[in-house]
Amino acid sequence: MFQRLRGTRDFYPEEMTARNKVFKIIRETAERHGFVEVVSPAIESFDLIAKKSGEDIKEEIYAFKDKGGRMICLIPEFTPSVSRMIANRQKELGKPLKWYSIPRHWRYERPQSGRLREFYQLNVDIFGSESPKADTEVLSVGICIMLNLGLKDFLFHISNRKFLQGLLQEYNVSNIQEAFRIIDKRDKIPEEEFVDGLLKCGIKDYDEILDILDSVTIENIGDFRGRNELMDKAIDNLIDIFRYLEYYGVREHCVLDLSIVRGLAYYTDMVFEVYDKKKEMRSLFGGGRYDDLVESFGGEHTPAVGFGMGDVVLELMMKKEGVWPEEKTDMDYYIANIGDVDRYVFFIAKKLRNKGYRVTFDLMERNLSNQLKYADKINAKKVIIVGEKEIKEGKILIRDMETGKQEKIDVNKI
Amino acid sequence: MFQRLRGTRDFYPEEMTARNKVFKIIRETAERHGFVEVVSPAIESFDLIAKKSGEDIKEEIYAFKDKGGRMICLIPEFTPSVSRMIANRQKELGKPLKWYSIPRHWRYERPQSGRLREFYQLNVDIFGSESPKADTEVLSVGICIMLNLGLKDFLFHISNRKFLQGLLQEYNVSNIQEAFRIIDKRDKIPEEEFVDGLLKCGIKDYDEILDILDSVTIENIGDFRGRNELMDKAIDNLIDIFRYLEYYGVREHCVLDLSIVRGLAYYTDMVFEVYDKKKEMRSLFGGGRYDDLVESFGGEHTPAVGFGMGDVVLELMMKKEGVWPEEKTDMDYYIANIGDVDRYVFFIAKKLRNKGYRVTFDLMERNLSNQLKYADKINAKKVIIVGEKEIKEGKILIRDMETGKQEKIDVNKI
Repeated sequence: MFQRLRGTRDFYPEEMTARNKVFKIIRETAERHGFVEVVSPAIESFDLIAKKSGEDIKEEIYAFKDKGGRMICLIPEFTPSVSRMIANRQKELGKPLKWYSIPRHWRYERPQSGRLREFYQLNVDIFGSESPKADTEVLSVGICIMLNLGLKDFLFHISNRKFLQGLLQEYNVSNIQEAFRIIDKRDKIPEEEFVDGLLKCGIKDYDEILDILDSVTIENIGDFRGRNELMDKAIDNLIDIFRYLEYYGVREHCVLDLSIVRGLAYYTDMVFEVYDKKKEMRSLFGGGRYDDLVESFGGEHTPAVGFGMGDVVLELMMKKEGVWPEEKTDMDYYIANIGDVDRYVFFIAKKLRNKGYRVTFDLMERNLSNQLKYADKINAKKVIIVGEKEIKEGKILIRDMETGKQEKIDVNKI
Repeated sequence: MFQRLRGTRDFYPEEMTARNKVFKIIRETAERHGFVEVVSPAIESFDLIAKKSGEDIKEEIYAFKDKGGRMICLIPEFTPSVSRMIANRQKELGKPLKWYSIPRHWRYERPQSGRLREFYQLNVDIFGSESPKADTEVLSVGICIMLNLGLKDFLFHISNRKFLQGLLQEYNVSNIQEAFRIIDKRDKIPEEEFVDGLLKCGIKDYDEILDILDSVTIENIGDFRGRNELMDKAIDNLIDIFRYLEYYGVREHCVLDLSIVRGLAYYTDMVFEVYDKKKEMRSLFGGGRYDDLVESFGGEHTPAVGFGMGDVVLELMMKKEGVWPEEKTDMDYYIANIGDVDRYVFFIAKKLRNKGYRVTFDLMERNLSNQLKYADKINAKKVIIVGEKEIKEGKILIRDMETGKQEKIDVNKI
């Protein structure tokens, strides 16, 4: 028997019911925050995707030659496509743009808990604004999505890359990109390897640096003002963001965490990652500001800030916290028949559907008892019984499947 | 500058607004007819797709080796995947199943009006029922989708393959599959080629056969009863379907058209294609019954009937009839600021969003006049103006952008 490919999923109706509820909450929250939906193709030229993807992602791309000999690929992330969309129409598009999208992405990696080869990802971005208010809007929509989904065990760890960059300059660290890469891996690699990596980047006083990263809070970060321009910029930005988060009433879900770097190389300023409160699990999702990216795709200089949130980890989190919706379909009406009453069954179905109800009826020539069993299986809220005898008097029975209450009504009063 | 691949589309927010409205109507209509949503992967093993796809489709598949050396492809149609899904869980699934899905499909063909390389397709299917009521439900949901989208210029041309099959047997035609293929192409190839093709299949009396196909109506099809079992089955089935369509009140949108064959080889009984009333354009979409397919994918024998409706032709039709929704985004509230009132802007935004409104505010440090221009550009229905002076008295201004009416209200009364 044929099987689906490893790392892909089939969603049967029961699962779709739950997923549609979750996606609806996500969409509504994004739209209330003033974001509008965009959709890009699932396939793009390999050059576009390879241009800025991190090395990790590049190795995992589903890439191939199409019949015309072009090297194309399934999109492994949204950023290249959305940057291209902006560059393609920059003249007509206003500022700022608040865009969201929930495309599918594909990455050829080993399927494991929280990682699949095909997944959905919510992408939320603001283009055209340098203001920390834009950073705050992006953080807020992320926080409100978590809250609206019923999640409680999460904390947004927020930093600004320029702080670490400036700090490393203070200590005369030569290879800052490599230092970022190592510091990003801190929780994922053995301490020995970590220290070794730092030393290789020329970080001798790593204890001092790590101490700063670990101990600075939003309350005392101001003490580091005046060291250099990069750090000052980062400090002002972070203080602004935390003030706005306070104004928006979501400050309690955030913490300053200067050790946050984000693996991908294109972030320029604010970066964040979301963890469970005890930081026991891997990062749930993250994002940040990437002011130079659109330009690198051929557009004008366009400040940008956003995040991507995958559905696989989200589902795991929601199930862990017991807030994943029940996987169960239902139906407003099932119309059962006794005898030759087809004309009325179709008539009643049409009438109820026109009123907006979801309606189905027997397609199996079953007897009444088996029809009722099926109605029960599909969780019909109400069953209408159309009998040969009753219909002659213009009557039908309506049974409420929850209360068991049954009443006889005029067929024209439906 | 990077461009999207030929035959793919970018959907910017304005276009998405229209598309989301159209897709919502499609979903709601399907769900009211008792269909529930399923989703399958976008990638499948090549063997699965190649097994039953028509030759035309097979040549157009985006197929490639993944990094594990498996031959996989982007799905060019939904039927193989959904058949696999049923076969994979047949034991647990009840009968009948009424499923719909709106996946993306990919076909490498020459992009032209109505045909793209990446497109969405509504797939609606009923599995497990042999009843002509199931055929009728599938036709009805198709008709109601067209009507609910505001379309008027369409007619469902309905046939049953077994009628033509039986008729060709009567005339001792040897190669019935080839005869089907030629008759399916009747409107698309020159008459000479058509007649030539018929002769090659051993159809000498093609005039007689074509006369029957062209002249028989649902009213007189009963006259052909008693010739052979296949024709009798088809006649009973078609008469039942048209009676049910009458009961459901959608008979006027249908016509018997025995020349309808459908290119794909897997249809077994009822087939239909939708045309504009004058049949000037190519078929808009079509479907039919395919009782043997699930079994051929390793499942139990599972009668099935359904259709696929692509979004490209649908959009063309709707635009032609002037019923494509306006491509325009809007916003419930834009909050403008004068002076240092950030605290209140965030507070008001949060409050309105919590009530379900879509809200945005200035992220560009613009002056009031430019803020109002932006509010106008994004079609804000209402603008709230938060001024330094007014807010000291706890007041804000609300301006209705349609009526121009403006009122000062208490900030706490939002």
